[in-house]
This record gives sequence, structure tokens and C-alpha cells, in this order.
Amino acid sequence: MRGANMDFVSYFPVWSKLTDGQKDRILASLLTRTIEKGSVIHSGSMDCIGLVLVKTGQLRAYILSEEGREITIYRLFDVDMCLMTASCMIRSIQFDVTIEAEKDTELWVIPAETYKSIMEESAPVANYTNELMATRFSDVMWLVEQIMWKSLDKRVAAFLLEEASIEGTNEIKITHEIIANHLGTHREVITRMLRYFQNEGMVKLSRGMVTILDAEKLEALGDG
Amino acid sequence: MRGANMDFVSYFPVWSKLTDGQKDRILASLLTRTIEKGSVIHSGSMDCIGLVLVKTGQLRAYILSEEGREITIYRLFDVDMCLMTASCMIRSIQFDVTIEAEKDTELWVIPAETYKSIMEESAPVANYTNELMATRFSDVMWLVEQIMWKSLDKRVAAFLLEEASIEGTNEIKITHEIIANHLGTHREVITRMLRYFQNEGMVKLSRGMVTILDAEKLEALGDG
Repeated sequence: MRGANMDFVSYFPVWSKLTDGQKDRILASLLTRTIEKGSVIHSGSMDCIGLVLVKTGQLRAYILSEEGREITIYRLFDVDMCLMTASCMIRSIQFDVTIEAEKDTELWVIPAETYKSIMEESAPVANYTNELMATRFSDVMWLVEQIMWKSLDKRVAAFLLEEASIEGTNEIKITHEIIANHLGTHREVITRMLRYFQNEGMVKLSRGMVTILDAEKLEALGDG
Repeated sequence: MRGANMDFVSYFPVWSKLTDGQKDRILASLLTRTIEKGSVIHSGSMDCIGLVLVKTGQLRAYILSEEGREITIYRLFDVDMCLMTASCMIRSIQFDVTIEAEKDTELWVIPAETYKSIMEESAPVANYTNELMATRFSDVMWLVEQIMWKSLDKRVAAFLLEEASIEGTNEIKITHEIIANHLGTHREVITRMLRYFQNEGMVKLSRGMVTILDAEKLEALGDG
């Protein structure tokens, strides 16, 4: 356990700028959690577990419409840090995101009370938190640009290539519904688009699977 | 001038948490600037004038597509603070916004080097900066929800009511092009929508002017 925490230390960039007392408080309260694929770990303003560091696995942050539509705003991978699970620490965060595990995931958690009390007294920790928020803010600005200036065919192409890269295979196990939830659109729209991609020889569709046949053509579309 | 700076002090929420040395550094470097309506004060990553406090006037922050389309991401009014004019201070801000004066505007500016050096040593200033960023982040998340889940007729209705409220009149001097630039769409689309609003008796159109005739009906549409 002590060894595992030492691992954590190496991924926490401002560790060396903490006082011994602050280091002790973090190590004494640090938790590890194992989350099953599909579980929601944060939902709106109800939860505030704390600052989360992804040890292994994959998380997805998304927003929900009143009608239950979804759009992915960012995803987190190994050794990424999640601030939104500690959104209660920053009063001016006035929006709700949901965070779910896309794969079985192991996390380190600094509980919100511990992190908040250290952030209030430590300029390096507060500035690090600033950088974390700016990173997520940049993700969302990128999303705004995608939604505003890019047509959906290009977004679907880019999404399929991203999935293939994350999974390390051209055989992507995913339903049309899930693609729609990532991109903030309806299943029917995705089905129509994928059939068009299939007619153009870029993908092959089968039950619960999209196989990329012509990655170059898909890339040319996604970049355009 | 000293009196004017004292005014500034009352709008800077963490002033009492600064050391005397930090207060002196801010007062010694504090600038006032007068900006003409239509001037751009910040454009992408080129400029970094510093932390800006709007004394009087109105600023608009927007993003630009490669084709020159615009969408407003937030607006700033009297005593609002602008962090994006100091975006060079935070490495992880990886997006470009343009900020222009929508009215003749008077600003206070804490130059970026002064603010950055104080932010690095002061936890209260760093945490205040965090709250500022979270406020703008929340504005953009609100925008994402508008774009994703709200149809354009509702967004145009809400925009006209917002303008009427800012200007304190139902006779809004604005072109269809400018409305399109706020909402990230094309002039032709706005013209079509406003003509529909006119047919429904909600507005009256004349050269360079949109007059709200039925604010209640517009509100019902905008809320829906």
C-alpha cells in the first residue's frame, strides 16, 4: 500500500512543493478505488468525491439534456487527473457533468476536504488546479469548434479513428446508440451516416461492430 | 489618479489578502485604458495585456472559424473581470479567443507580469483566478448546452430579449449579420428567422433595427 502511494506521488506534479505536513495529510487520506465498466462515479452537483487520478482504465465526462440526450465533453486515460469529481471545491463551477467508467478503472482519490484545505493554503497547489481546469476548458473549447464549424460526417469519421486508436484495433465494438451519445446526436442519424460510409467502402457494419476498411479515406474526411 | 485606483481596490475581491508589498506592486503597475467601440483588445495568443477589470462599457469574447465565422462565447459588463486577456499566464489555456469592445469602454489593467508573479506566490490570488476561470468555463458550458439542445429560433428569441435588456429599449439597433456572428450562424438564416418572427407579430424589422413588439411571446419561445 505504501508502495502504491509512492507511485501516486510520482504522478502528482507539485508534490515537491508541498510542506511535510501537507504531504502527510494527503498520504493519510489518499484512497484507491476500483470502478466497474459502466459505473457512474460522479453525477452533477450531488457527488464530490475529490481529486481523482486515473491509475488504469478510462473515464468519460458528458453532459445530459432534459430529454436524456448526451454529448461527451472529454475522456480521461491512464495518469490523467480529474478535477470535476471535486467540483464542489470551486464555487463558480456552475454546470453539471456526469463521469462514468468506460472500462474497468482503478483510481487514486484525494478526498475533497483534504485537497480543498491544501489548495487554500498552497499557491503551487492552487496554480496546479488552475492548469487542470484550463486543460478541461480547452477540451470544451475544442468541442465548441467541432460542433460549430465541422459537419457531422467529419466528426463521425474522426470519432471512429479515435476509437480505433484507443482500442488498438480496426474492429470497433460499439453500437450506433453509443456513438450518438458521444457526439450529441440521434441514433438514426448515426445509422444513416455509417451506411453512407459503408457504401463508400470506408467501413463494414455488423451487429455491435464497426470495422474500418479504409482508414486513409476516413482520415481525409475527418481532417477536412 | 490615486482616487481612481482606490476605486479599483474595492472591486478586487482578494485585496485584503495581499501583503503590503503585493499591494504596492499592483498599484505601481496598474493602468487605465480607454477603448473605442469596435476595437479589438485581444486576439488569440498574440496579445497578453494582463488581467482586465471593466470600469464602464461592454466587451465581447468570441471565437473565429477558418472561414471567418464567429460565435460569441461570453460578454463582460461594468466591474466584470477578464482573465482571457491574460491567457499567457496559464500554460494550459490552449485556445484562442478574440475580445472586442461593443461600446466605448474604460478598463483597469494589471499587467500580465505583475499579476503572474503575485499569483505564483499568493494562494488567495491563485484561488481567485481559479474562480474567474470557472466562471468563464461555466459560460461556455452553458453555450454548449444552448447549441446542442436548443433550436435556433429559441436562441434568436433569447438573444433579442438579452439585447433589449442590456440596452434598456425594445428598439434594438443591430444588423442581421451581427446577430449571426453572435450565434455562430449565417446572415441568411437569421434574416429568414426574423421574417418568421415578424409574420408572427413578435418583432418589426426596419433598416439596421429590430423592434420587439411582443416580448411575452418571444419569451415563451426563448424559454421553451
